[in-house]
Parts: sequence; C-alpha cells; structure tokens
Amino acid sequence: MDNIYKIVLASNSPRRKQILDQLNIEYEICPSGVEETVSSSVPTEVCQELASKKAMDVAASIRTYNELHKDIVSPQNILVIGADTIVAANEEILGKPSDENDAVRMLKMLQNSSHSVFTGVAFVFISKEGRVGEYHFYEESKVYFYPMGDDDIKRYIDSGEPMDKAGAYGIQGKAAEFVRSIDGDYYNVMGFPIARILNELKTLGVKIKRYY
Amino acid sequence: MDNIYKIVLASNSPRRKQILDQLNIEYEICPSGVEETVSSSVPTEVCQELASKKAMDVAASIRTYNELHKDIVSPQNILVIGADTIVAANEEILGKPSDENDAVRMLKMLQNSSHSVFTGVAFVFISKEGRVGEYHFYEESKVYFYPMGDDDIKRYIDSGEPMDKAGAYGIQGKAAEFVRSIDGDYYNVMGFPIARILNELKTLGVKIKRYY
Repeated sequence: MDNIYKIVLASNSPRRKQILDQLNIEYEICPSGVEETVSSSVPTEVCQELASKKAMDVAASIRTYNELHKDIVSPQNILVIGADTIVAANEEILGKPSDENDAVRMLKMLQNSSHSVFTGVAFVFISKEGRVGEYHFYEESKVYFYPMGDDDIKRYIDSGEPMDKAGAYGIQGKAAEFVRSIDGDYYNVMGFPIARILNELKTLGVKIKRYY
Repeated sequence: MDNIYKIVLASNSPRRKQILDQLNIEYEICPSGVEETVSSSVPTEVCQELASKKAMDVAASIRTYNELHKDIVSPQNILVIGADTIVAANEEILGKPSDENDAVRMLKMLQNSSHSVFTGVAFVFISKEGRVGEYHFYEESKVYFYPMGDDDIKRYIDSGEPMDKAGAYGIQGKAAEFVRSIDGDYYNVMGFPIARILNELKTLGVKIKRYY
C-alpha cells in the first residue's frame, strides 16, 4: 500500500483538469505562483525547467504546511505534477499571444507548415516519511497545419479561443479544422501527455487512485 | 450565393455530431438505414464503399421527398455527407466488438503495436435544380498503443466504452491513456476527418453555413 500516491496538480489549466477527469483520476489542485523565468532558450530545456519550478514550488508549500500542522495532518504519499507546454516554430518559442495582432502573427507562422509542441512534466514525490524525490521528462509532438486564409485567421481570432493558449491555438477547439495531421500524442498538444505520464509512473512503481 | 450548401449528415454517431458542433457548423441529421455489406475486403475500398452507400441512400430519400412535396419545398442546395470508419490491424478489419470477449481479443491485438484507422467520406451534392453529383475520398491515420496489462484491458472493458466502437476503443475517452502516438489526423481516429472534409469542400468551391 505504501506505493500509493495522492496527486497534486500544480496547474490551473482547464485542459489538464479535463484530461485527468476524463480518466477518473483522483487529484487536488494547487497552482504554483512561481515566476515563469528560465535560464535556457532551448525548447526541451525551457519546458522541463518551468515544469520543475512549478512542481518544486508547490511541493515546498506542502512540506511547510505539513510541518506546521504535523499534529493534525495524517501522513500520506504525495505526488506533485508540474507541466509546461510551449510551441516552437522556425526557431522561435511561441507563448500565449500578447494581443490579437500577436495572435495573427503566430497563426500566419503556423499555417501551411509544421511546428513542434513540447510539454515538460515534473514529478515531485513527497513520501509520508518526508523524503523528497524529483523526476522529469518532456514529450514532443509535431503538428502540421493546412493553409489558412486571412478570413480563416480572422474568424478563428474572433472566436476568442487563441488568447490564452501557447501558439495562439487550441487543437481541442475550433482549430481542429486547420490541423492536417499530428506526429505524436494528441493530448500532449492539448498540454498534458497523460499516456506518457501514466506509463512513467507505472515504470517507477507508483500507484495512483481513481474514481469508479 | 448559389454555392452555399445545407449539410445533411447521413450518420447518427454522437462523435460526428460533436465534431460538427465544435466548429459551429450547421447541419441536419438523417441516418441511413442501409445494410453494411460490401464487395471488397480492402480497408480503403470498404470504408469508401460504405460511406457512399450511406450518403446515396439518404440522398435518394431526400430527392423522393422533394419530388413528392415540390409545391411546398423551397429549393436549396443540399450536401449529404456519409462516413464510415474502420480499424485495420494485422490484415484484419476490426468492426465493433460482438461481445466482451471479442473486445478483449481486439485490444490484445492493438496493445504494444500499431494499427490504421480509415475513414471513408462521401459527398452527395443535390443542387437546387435537382442535379446530383458524388465525390469521395478516405483519410488514414496510424495509431500506436502502449503495452496494456490484463488489468488495463479489464478496467477499460468494465468502463463500457469499447462496445459501440470500431476496434473496441475510443481515443477521445478512456483509451486516451493507452495511445502512445498518432501519425495523422486525430479527428479521423474519432471517426470524422473534419479538417480534410472542409479543405475538400474549399477546393470544390462549396460553401457551408455556420452558427455564430
């Protein structure tokens, strides 16, 4: 029983919550307030560094809380999961667009071309005895867009969907019609490579709880 | 204005409806009652033949109806869309499982391996002057599964999800955790390659209506 961990998601992304819910996975949410600054500009490093920062930040809060309330907190194993998704096209990292003009610029880069989506994932394990361990990896998916006309771009931006999304699009929403194909995991493009995550946990011998 | 067509979906699949709704596309539903018998055993031919059969069947009903009610039916261009999705693994075409044992058999074939998902799509155009035209194509996506243990297969079948789905799984549901990657269109794996469909219509100069 000692390898059962309670998941704490260090993210407030509705897509990440939706994917965990879809698979009946039990979790709590504790978003990190960490600043998203990085030391690297290499996509595979940036996404892992930010994922680790978020997970470590939340893990530190949990340990402080548990220390302060050790008389009332019953010990359990905790797995904090941090994730960070970035889009990279033509050597440029695309974050969330700053405004509609920026979204137009990004979509013009992506249309009729391919780009990569990277999600970094960090696990921070806090055992019930208080030991801490960290593990991280990234998953890459290539995405190919059909050509988009100016009218397509305008209609898509008018839908309001691009503004809170890395690369200015959401594959699970109204951008579905612009994606010619994927080479990789679809859920990674949504921002949370759940199949890889569960397989890594299986390999690590970590069990999680599900609702039935 | 004469190139605007009203879509009639010759399918009752909740996934196909969901994808059209996701993109605010206007359509009506008129499922075909045609028997799913085919003359071929080649996946690319089977899926197109069935898609055409469904669309032609519905188009014939519409023309009969319009002929009988020509005094009250106002003429408009109609596009009937038929679709058929099949899964092919190890030279075998996998339809919907006949029972739970069949679902176990299929999932054991798919796990730790790759397979192809084919969706055939048929357009039948009925112009407001009564002219009929047909056009069809297919889209293929490759899907790679992670290894599944017997406990994974049992839990997935217990969820009830496999029974109404070709190949005994739904990528948009609880099978998400078993899919390592896709090479192709995700929505094609769900059963409706919407991006390809809209691009074919664009190439054909056909316009459709959307809700805003």
